[in-house]
Amino acid sequence: MQTGSITVADQPLLRYVLQRADDALVLGHRLSEWNGKAPLMEEEMALSNMALDLIGQARALYTYAGQVEGAGRDEDAYAYLRDERAYMNVLLVEQPNGDFAVTIVRQMLYAAFVEPYWQRLIASTDATLAAIAAKAQKEAAYHLRHSAEWVIRLGDGTDESHRRAQDALDLLWPFTGELFEVSAAERELLASGVAVDPGPLRAVWRETVSRVVAEATLTLPADGWMQRGGREGRHSEYLGHLLTDLQYLQRTHPGATW
Amino acid sequence: MQTGSITVADQPLLRYVLQRADDALVLGHRLSEWNGKAPLMEEEMALSNMALDLIGQARALYTYAGQVEGAGRDEDAYAYLRDERAYMNVLLVEQPNGDFAVTIVRQMLYAAFVEPYWQRLIASTDATLAAIAAKAQKEAAYHLRHSAEWVIRLGDGTDESHRRAQDALDLLWPFTGELFEVSAAERELLASGVAVDPGPLRAVWRETVSRVVAEATLTLPADGWMQRGGREGRHSEYLGHLLTDLQYLQRTHPGATW
Repeated sequence: MQTGSITVADQPLLRYVLQRADDALVLGHRLSEWNGKAPLMEEEMALSNMALDLIGQARALYTYAGQVEGAGRDEDAYAYLRDERAYMNVLLVEQPNGDFAVTIVRQMLYAAFVEPYWQRLIASTDATLAAIAAKAQKEAAYHLRHSAEWVIRLGDGTDESHRRAQDALDLLWPFTGELFEVSAAERELLASGVAVDPGPLRAVWRETVSRVVAEATLTLPADGWMQRGGREGRHSEYLGHLLTDLQYLQRTHPGATW
Repeated sequence: MQTGSITVADQPLLRYVLQRADDALVLGHRLSEWNGKAPLMEEEMALSNMALDLIGQARALYTYAGQVEGAGRDEDAYAYLRDERAYMNVLLVEQPNGDFAVTIVRQMLYAAFVEPYWQRLIASTDATLAAIAAKAQKEAAYHLRHSAEWVIRLGDGTDESHRRAQDALDLLWPFTGELFEVSAAERELLASGVAVDPGPLRAVWRETVSRVVAEATLTLPADGWMQRGGREGRHSEYLGHLLTDLQYLQRTHPGATW
């Protein structure tokens, strides 16, 4: 494994694969921060399982990125040796865990987008991406079901759980617009059918989220100004701290060769 | 769920089930402390998977403990509401993670014991324990294979990895004797075939460990004075800190009812 920070080549397919991988890794890392701190043993395991699914998706995508780039880099190089500005995840997934309501609302908002996204990517003309999407779609369907059930339970629960769930929804709402943007890299891959356009998924996503929010007796926030920039490496203050934690070992002991 | 600390009834079967559950929970928690800090993505997932297996074993055993006690307690009550002195795990599993060598040597020493232990418990006259053992044995077999491979890789690796693996083995060795002790609760369950005697497993364990240690070009420590007391609730200084972390949420927000 290489040491020091790496700069990846400016190839559309490579950048696109890394964007999708970074979403999964960063969200998976956030969920793993709950380990040993979840409110119930059952939820401890559910959060861990979702984290493992997401980290597994990231691994598969980083491995493919290595083949695409052809520079002999493995999955770990992309995860551990890119600087904050080289990470291309959407801002939603890097937002802090907050209380359990924030974590579970974030999961629901992301899964309600990514489940139909993977579903469509199964038809990708890129066989590797199609295979990764097929596995990820099944996992995302479980994440959506699990998180939606919790949002309903919290929203339709006590006064305090309702208030916290509504606060979480209001807090995270401005980060949902970015999910439907087409990145520059992605745009170049649409005509060939390698990538799928996330734009049209907004209607599907909105329907899913509206249904969950209504059942949870919560109020859908108004669509105001939306945050953006993650796909181009402009992140909120939180990603740097997350990467410090995630990359600590490799950065401190380059190659971890002992 | 109840709040405040609980004191469990003094029944042999209940205490025995809790002893085995505590081993699994405490070791699972230790492994989960690696989340987001493992040296490689692959190992991140392996440690998480082993943690999930162990926490799953603990959940199954705690749930059974609730049925045995008949006081209406669920798995979470046993995990989150017992004080340090009521935990009955062996001292080995509560030892700190240290560096990766300590974590993986600890795993190998424990798995080399518990895999044949679960294997024998499959013949338990208690059908619930037999079923739990059947699942746990398969998981422990993977933990043993995985950790043994790593011990060999570290021991038979660089000078530094060899040194660290040997240090880990020397550090943890005094905690291995307790694995083969028969607790008072356990003793009462041997004649009826509910529990199995861990004593005779020492020879099997020693053969497994000797083979791994030899292949790793490490040196088996001499059998000197062995630590004990965990099964009776007398713990090393480390368990209290671990429980503070594990029980924080339930203790701070009793019942976590929001």
